[in-house]
Amino acid sequence: MSGNTFGTLFRLTTFGESHGVGLGGVVEGCPPGIALTEETIQRELDRRKPGQGGVAATARKESDAVRLLSGVFEGVTTGTPIGFTIMNEDQRSRDYSAIMDVYRPGHADLGYDAKFGRRDYRGGGRSSGRETVSRVAGGAIAQELLRGLGIEVLAATVELGGIVAAGRDFAGAAARPYFSADAHTVDAWEARVREVKAQGDTLGGIVEVRATGVPAGLGEPVFDKLDARLAYALMGVGAVKGVEIGAGFAAARATGSTNNDAMVPGGFLSNNAGGILGGMASGQEILARVAVKPIPSISSAQQTVNSKGEATTITIGGRHDICAIPRIVPVLKAMTLLALADFVLLQRRMGQAGARL
Amino acid sequence: MSGNTFGTLFRLTTFGESHGVGLGGVVEGCPPGIALTEETIQRELDRRKPGQGGVAATARKESDAVRLLSGVFEGVTTGTPIGFTIMNEDQRSRDYSAIMDVYRPGHADLGYDAKFGRRDYRGGGRSSGRETVSRVAGGAIAQELLRGLGIEVLAATVELGGIVAAGRDFAGAAARPYFSADAHTVDAWEARVREVKAQGDTLGGIVEVRATGVPAGLGEPVFDKLDARLAYALMGVGAVKGVEIGAGFAAARATGSTNNDAMVPGGFLSNNAGGILGGMASGQEILARVAVKPIPSISSAQQTVNSKGEATTITIGGRHDICAIPRIVPVLKAMTLLALADFVLLQRRMGQAGARL
Amino acid sequence: MSGNTFGTLFRLTTFGESHGVGLGGVVEGCPPGIALTEETIQRELDRRKPGQGGVAATARKESDAVRLLSGVFEGVTTGTPIGFTIMNEDQRSRDYSAIMDVYRPGHADLGYDAKFGRRDYRGGGRSSGRETVSRVAGGAIAQELLRGLGIEVLAATVELGGIVAAGRDFAGAAARPYFSADAHTVDAWEARVREVKAQGDTLGGIVEVRATGVPAGLGEPVFDKLDARLAYALMGVGAVKGVEIGAGFAAARATGSTNNDAMVPGGFLSNNAGGILGGMASGQEILARVAVKPIPSISSAQQTVNSKGEATTITIGGRHDICAIPRIVPVLKAMTLLALADFVLLQRRMGQAGARL
Amino acid sequence: MSGNTFGTLFRLTTFGESHGVGLGGVVEGCPPGIALTEETIQRELDRRKPGQGGVAATARKESDAVRLLSGVFEGVTTGTPIGFTIMNEDQRSRDYSAIMDVYRPGHADLGYDAKFGRRDYRGGGRSSGRETVSRVAGGAIAQELLRGLGIEVLAATVELGGIVAAGRDFAGAAARPYFSADAHTVDAWEARVREVKAQGDTLGGIVEVRATGVPAGLGEPVFDKLDARLAYALMGVGAVKGVEIGAGFAAARATGSTNNDAMVPGGFLSNNAGGILGGMASGQEILARVAVKPIPSISSAQQTVNSKGEATTITIGGRHDICAIPRIVPVLKAMTLLALADFVLLQRRMGQAGARL
Repeated sequence: MSGNTFGTLFRLTTFGESHGVGLGGVVEGCPPGIALTEETIQRELDRRKPGQGGVAATARKESDAVRLLSGVFEGVTTGTPIGFTIMNEDQRSRDYSAIMDVYRPGHADLGYDAKFGRRDYRGGGRSSGRETVSRVAGGAIAQELLRGLGIEVLAATVELGGIVAAGRDFAGAAARPYFSADAHTVDAWEARVREVKAQGDTLGGIVEVRATGVPAGLGEPVFDKLDARLAYALMGVGAVKGVEIGAGFAAARATGSTNNDAMVPGGFLSNNAGGILGGMASGQEILARVAVKPIPSISSAQQTVNSKGEATTITIGGRHDICAIPRIVPVLKAMTLLALADFVLLQRRMGQAGARL
Repeated sequence: MSGNTFGTLFRLTTFGESHGVGLGGVVEGCPPGIALTEETIQRELDRRKPGQGGVAATARKESDAVRLLSGVFEGVTTGTPIGFTIMNEDQRSRDYSAIMDVYRPGHADLGYDAKFGRRDYRGGGRSSGRETVSRVAGGAIAQELLRGLGIEVLAATVELGGIVAAGRDFAGAAARPYFSADAHTVDAWEARVREVKAQGDTLGGIVEVRATGVPAGLGEPVFDKLDARLAYALMGVGAVKGVEIGAGFAAARATGSTNNDAMVPGGFLSNNAGGILGGMASGQEILARVAVKPIPSISSAQQTVNSKGEATTITIGGRHDICAIPRIVPVLKAMTLLALADFVLLQRRMGQAGARL
Repeated sequence: MSGNTFGTLFRLTTFGESHGVGLGGVVEGCPPGIALTEETIQRELDRRKPGQGGVAATARKESDAVRLLSGVFEGVTTGTPIGFTIMNEDQRSRDYSAIMDVYRPGHADLGYDAKFGRRDYRGGGRSSGRETVSRVAGGAIAQELLRGLGIEVLAATVELGGIVAAGRDFAGAAARPYFSADAHTVDAWEARVREVKAQGDTLGGIVEVRATGVPAGLGEPVFDKLDARLAYALMGVGAVKGVEIGAGFAAARATGSTNNDAMVPGGFLSNNAGGILGGMASGQEILARVAVKPIPSISSAQQTVNSKGEATTITIGGRHDICAIPRIVPVLKAMTLLALADFVLLQRRMGQAGARL
Repeated sequence: MSGNTFGTLFRLTTFGESHGVGLGGVVEGCPPGIALTEETIQRELDRRKPGQGGVAATARKESDAVRLLSGVFEGVTTGTPIGFTIMNEDQRSRDYSAIMDVYRPGHADLGYDAKFGRRDYRGGGRSSGRETVSRVAGGAIAQELLRGLGIEVLAATVELGGIVAAGRDFAGAAARPYFSADAHTVDAWEARVREVKAQGDTLGGIVEVRATGVPAGLGEPVFDKLDARLAYALMGVGAVKGVEIGAGFAAARATGSTNNDAMVPGGFLSNNAGGILGGMASGQEILARVAVKPIPSISSAQQTVNSKGEATTITIGGRHDICAIPRIVPVLKAMTLLALADFVLLQRRMGQAGARL
C-alpha cells in the first residue's frame, strides 16, 4: 500500500498534479507480445475528456495527449515497464488567493494540509480529478491484455440526479450522452442537469460496471477477494461513496431462498451474486454498482473555515462540471480493467491447476 | 496482494481451514511496548462465538481458545511478529459425501474447484466463516495499539431481515442480542428470525461501523484512500455485498448544496461524507455501512450441479446459523481496526509533518 | 519489506523467539496438488539440528518437531496457506541477569534495544539462530514444488577455519560431517575445530550453494535480478558477511576476455557468471558463495558496555557452537529454495511467453 | 517484488530502454517539505556521465537532462509522487543486424529472449547500463531526505584491474578520476587501462560504499536486515558479482576473538562488522565492498550462438567503456541512499520507541 501504486503483478504507478508540469505513470508487469500504440490509449483518454455528452461538463479544453516512453518495441509490448506522460498544457500562474488558505467544503483541502502539512492548492493539485488521466491510460493497456483473453469491461450510467435509466443497453452506452445505459432517459437527465445548473448546484448519480468473459475461479481468497479488490478499486476514485456487488444492499433484505442463484448445467438461473461467489468469479457476468456524489464545487456561498480554523464563506466561481458523470465512467471502467488484469496474472501462478489463462 | 495477508506495515497473515488441525495468524509490525495478553484477544474472540444473542445462531460449541506463541515478553509487545493459534477441537471424520462433489448455491465451492483444481470440502475449508477467528484475533491486537492513540471502533447491527433499528446507540450494542444498535428493535428481529427459521430459510441485514478519534489526514491518496481501504477490508468478509461511506448511495441522489458538509470553527455542521474527504480522515466520526446477504445454507431443496456439471438437487441439513449477523459484527469491527492501525503506522513516516501519531 | 516475510508469490512469513512459547510460519502461494507431509519437512529440520557432524556443535537437545496446521488435505497442498509450528520445549526460567543489561560483542543486543526500545534477552530472542527453523521448514515446502519442475538445490561447506576443501562433491555433502564438499578435508577441519575450541574461541567458514535445472530466463530485471535476490536471501541469514555469484570478487581482477563465458551450441565453455546473466538464469548451474563469520559467543573475557553505556566485561559461558557451520548450511539451502520458488511463480505470469513452468 | 520498483515506503519505480523514447521514474513516499530542484538531481546525474575521469570511458555524448514533472511545489516536496523523465536524444535507426539475433557473451541477451520471448536489441534495451540514470535520479532525491537527518553516503573505487588503491580518502574521491579513494594510485590505474584498451580488452574493479550518521537500530530483522537489503540493492546493479559487509570474506577466516568488535563507552574498538550487527545499524560507519566484473563488450572475436542456437562468432565494435568504473560508482551510491531512505521511513513507524528519525 504505497498510495500511488495499484496492483501486485499488473501494476500501475501514477504521478502528477492538476497544474504541475505533467502527469503520467508506469505500467509494470504487462506481458510481452501485446500490440500497443499511443492511439489505443488516446482513444480511451478522449472518452474522459470534457464534452462527452450532455451539458454537465465544462467547456474547458484539455488535449490530454499521451506519449509512450518505453516498454513497446516494433508495435508490441516487450514485458519491460511501460512509461507514459500526459503533459499539462496550461500551467500559467493564476490568482489562487481565494482558495489557497480556505478549505472548500467537500474537498480534500483540509486532509492534505493535515496529512502533509502543506498542499499544492492550484486546481486541487494531486486531489484533482485530473489525476485520473493516468488511471485511464493504465486501464487502456490492461484492456489490450484482457481483450486477447476474451474478457471485456463495459460501464454505463444508470441513474442521474435521482432519475433511473429505463433500460440497460451497455453496448451502446459509449456513444451516448452521459454514457447512458438507456437512450430514452437522456432527455430527462439533460433537463435535470439544466435545472440544477441554473441553481448553481450540482448532481450525483449511479454507474454500473459489467465484466464478461471472466473465467470462474478468478480472485484470491481470503482478503483479496475479487469483490474486495473491485470495491477497493472503485471506492478509490474521487467522489465515489458506495459500491455494491450484484444485488448489493437489496440482498440484505432478501432471504436465502430468493437470493441464492440456483445452478443448472451450463450456468445459473439468476445473478444476485453479481458473478462472484466466495470472492472468486463464478463464470457469470461481473456486476458492480457505484454511487457518485455531487461535485462539491458549487457556485452558491458556503460556510467554511480557513487554514487557521477561522470562519469564512466561499463562493466557487469558474467553469466547473455539474456532475462527475459522465467523465468518471471511463475511470471506473479503467479501474475494473486494472483489477482484473492483476487477477489474471496472479491466477497464472497456479500453473496446470485452475482456470486457463 | 497475496490473498492471506492484510496490511502493509501493520500486517495480519492468516491460515487455517474449518476442519483442519488449527487456524491462526501472524501480526507483523505491531510497535513495541503495548500491553497484550491472551485474555485481551480471547475477549474479542468470545464476542464472535455462537450464542451472542438471538436465536439466529447455532448451538454448535467451539471454545476458540487463542494461544500466543511469540512477540510478547513480560506482558508487552516487543516489536517482533506475534504468532497465534486457535486449534480446531473437532476434526473427526464425518460423512461429506453429500457435498464433496456438489456445488452448494451461494457458496464458494465452484470457485475453489475452478481456481485450485481441488478443495477441502470439509465444512467449507478455507472458505468457511471459521476463517474469521484469525481476523478477530488480529483486530484485537490492533485495538490495543489504537486505544493508546485515542481511536475507538464500534460496530452494531442497524437492520435485520428488512426491519430497521429505531435508534443508534452504539455504546450499548456490544451487550445486546444481535449487537443491535437499538434495544427496542430486538424483539421485532427475534420474531422475524423465528418466522424465517420455521420456513427453513435465512436472513440478511445491515451493519454500521463507526470510528472515533481518527485524526484528520489519515489515509493515503490516491489509490489507498481511507474509504477505498475500508471498502476493501469490509467487502473482503464473506457474505458482504455492499459498502457505503457516510451518506453512501443517498449521496448519489442529493445535490452538492445539500450533500456538502459545511465547516465552522472546530468542526462540521453535518457528516454526509462519513468522516472522509479526498480519501483522508476529516477528523469527524468515520461511518461505514455494510450489506450482509442471507446465509446461503438453507434447508429447503435447491437446484444445483455437481463437479461434473450434471444437474442435481441439494438439501442442506445440520445446525446452521440463520443469519451471519450477529457473528459477523465483531469481524467487521476487526477489519476496520486492522485498516486503521495500518494507516496509523503509514502516517508516522511523515515525521514532523502531518498528524501526530 | 515487512522484515518477517520473504517472497512475493511464494511467501514465507515467520515468527518466534528462542525461548518463547513456539516458532513457526505461514507459506502462502504454494500451488495446489503438491504432495506434502510433516515427515518431508522434518527431514530437513533434522539436518539443521545439533550433532550433524563434527565437534563444532553443541550437545544441546532440541527435537524441533514440526506440526502442519493447514493447507494440506488428503496428503497434498490445496493452494491455501500452509501454517506450521515448532514449539519450544524448554522455556524454563533461567538466570539471565548476566546478559539482560549487557551488550554481547558481535551480537544484535544493542540494535534491538536501539530499534525497539526493549528486547527479549532470553537466549537472543528473535535474533537467535533458532529463528532459522522456520526458514528451513519453508524451504522444505519450496523444495517439493521445485522438485516437480526438475530444479534441485545443494549446499556444502567449502572452507572452514581457513582450510579450503580439496574437492567439490556436492552430492555426498549431506551425509558428511560439516556438510563438507570433500571427504578428505574433514579431518583437518576437525583438528582445527578442536584446537580453537580448546582456546575458548570460534571459527567461520565459506559455504557454496548450487542450483541445477533452473530454466534460462528466471529472474526479474532490473531491481529483482536473480543474483540480487539471492544476495538478499543469503545475506539475511545471521552470521553471513559476504555473497559472491560465480567468479565473484575474482571477476573484479579478471579481464573481459577471460571472464566472459563463451557460448557454443547447447551451452557454455565456462561458468564465471555463476549461471546468471543480466539478472536472469542462463540455464547453467547457479553458483553462490557465502562468507560465514565466527560465532561471536566466545568464552574468553571481552570488553563491552551495558545498556547505560557503561564499560564492563563479559564472559559467555554455557555450551555454544564453535561455528555456525554446519548448522547454517541447510538454512542457506532453504533460502535459495525460497528465492527460486518465488521466481518460478513470478515467471508463470508470462503465460505463453518465456520459460515453461 | 515487481522488478522495477525498489523500496517499500521510499519507493523508486523506473522505466526506460537504451534507445527508446525516454527513461524516468517515480519516487513515492518522499516526505513533504524537502527542498528539491532539477539542479540537485542533475548534479548527481552529471557524475554518472562519460568522461568522469580516466580513459576508461567512452567519448559518447549524452546530456541526460532530468525534468521534474510533479511532487514539488514552491521549491519543496509536497509528499505526492515525484515523477521525472530523462529523454533519449539519440533514437535514430542504426544497423543492429549484427546483434539482433546473436547472443553477446556476458550480456543479458539470452535471458531476455528466454524470459520474454522477445527483446529490444537496440543497445541492450532495458538491460543497458543506461537504465541506471533513473536510479541515480532517485538516489539524489533520497540524498536530500537523508542529508537533513545527518546521514551521508560516499562511494569510491578502491581497486581497478587488480591494482589496489593505496589510501582511503573518500571525501576527495568525487573530484578524482575513477572516483579513486587515493590520488596517488590514479596513474597506475590509467596505465593499466591504456594497456588493456590497446588489447581490445576490458577491466573490472572494486568499489567501497560508506554511510555515516546512520543511527543505531536502523534495519528490519529477520529477512530485511540492513546488510541483506544493501546486498540486494548493490547486487542488483549490472556487472556486480559480489558484496561484502565489513570484513566480509576475511571474517570467514578469522576467529571470534579477533573478529568481534569490542565495545567501550561511546563506541567500538574496531569495525569488522561494517557497522551492522544482527541486521541493524550499530551506530558505526556502514561499510560495503562491491565486486564489479569487466565489461563484457570486448572488441576481439568471441565464440557464441545465435537465437537459433547455432554457433557463430561476434566482434563488438563501436566506442565502449573499458570498465564499468567509474560510471557505476554514483549508481552504487544511489542504491545505498535508496535503501537507507526506505529504512528511515520504516523506522519511524516505531513512534516513541527506538531511534529518533
